[in-house]
Amino acid sequence: MKGTFVTFEGCEGSGKSTQLKLLSARLDEAGVDYILTREPGGSPIAERIREIILDGKNTAMCDECEALLYAAARVQHVKEKILPALEAGKLVICDRYIHSSLAYQGIARGLGEQYVASINSFAIQNCRPDLTIFLNIPPERAFARKHGADEDDRIEQLGLAFHTKVYNGYLSLMKDYPEIYPVDCSGTKYQTSDKIWQLLAEKNIIR
Amino acid sequence: MKGTFVTFEGCEGSGKSTQLKLLSARLDEAGVDYILTREPGGSPIAERIREIILDGKNTAMCDECEALLYAAARVQHVKEKILPALEAGKLVICDRYIHSSLAYQGIARGLGEQYVASINSFAIQNCRPDLTIFLNIPPERAFARKHGADEDDRIEQLGLAFHTKVYNGYLSLMKDYPEIYPVDCSGTKYQTSDKIWQLLAEKNIIR
Repeated sequence: MKGTFVTFEGCEGSGKSTQLKLLSARLDEAGVDYILTREPGGSPIAERIREIILDGKNTAMCDECEALLYAAARVQHVKEKILPALEAGKLVICDRYIHSSLAYQGIARGLGEQYVASINSFAIQNCRPDLTIFLNIPPERAFARKHGADEDDRIEQLGLAFHTKVYNGYLSLMKDYPEIYPVDCSGTKYQTSDKIWQLLAEKNIIR
Repeated sequence: MKGTFVTFEGCEGSGKSTQLKLLSARLDEAGVDYILTREPGGSPIAERIREIILDGKNTAMCDECEALLYAAARVQHVKEKILPALEAGKLVICDRYIHSSLAYQGIARGLGEQYVASINSFAIQNCRPDLTIFLNIPPERAFARKHGADEDDRIEQLGLAFHTKVYNGYLSLMKDYPEIYPVDCSGTKYQTSDKIWQLLAEKNIIR
């Protein structure tokens, strides 16, 4: 593949949206040819699947259904948007990807990492990230910064115990997935942004 | 499981809806404790997934996304509706189930029977039909009887060549899945209904 694929991971409130905005501004200034996209979603069909997944009213959704819906949205997004951009030589930056499924559904929901990895082997079309940036901030600090969960979002509603499992899940995934690099988020948002920029430079993703 | 699980399969226009209505009337008359349900759908979340799958505007949907959406709808339906009814000792009659995925996505779409069987191993929770009734009518006759495809239905729009692949897919599945019994539909709808009733009696599903 001619392009480079970078994904961002982290718990709710880890500052992903803020960091992606700061990164976009820097990439624009540096004249990098990139696209910024997100999961679940990123294409019209995948966004419709996103609505079902996140709808706060869908409390009856079972874990297996959730994992299969994420995978369905992912394959559509990969085929419609990510792969064409990579083939055109672009830098693709994606807010969440397969490691979210492994941490949330595999580990925190308890479906098992292997179960979720298998479902996703049907979804990602061998499209693996070159680099996955994990915004490393413990969930109790992340939630405090965010002033609590969004009541309309089914996943955010799940509470601190669940999100601590997600966080520990990410830490455990780092051992198995060498593409995951943690970025310490204990400083200001600008300090975190500098660390991300430095990591992208070290990996020769930007120059 | 205390109940009995019977599924109906067939190509578009094979007369499933008509036969299910006739069967319902007979089961009501015989005082059988049963539920009639359908795929994709059968529960509120699964019905929302159904809308995305069948929406005639979603022409960009890739085959893998379609297969994963069917599986997501299926697991929700199995857990919310089919398993509780079987555990309560009921007869569960379902319009389409896993063999539709194998015939449509696995064989006719060309994803492969093994690929679709694997995805569905995550979805069906060991909930296999005791009997699968295949309404056997070649698609050119079925389409003629139906006066053409529904233009708002993404699957029906696919044309005779596709539906012939589906039909041949079902014939080939009969060899691998002993639960599938073909019912010849060349007679009147009442003759077909009699054959189905007789098959259910032979299998001791009704008395």
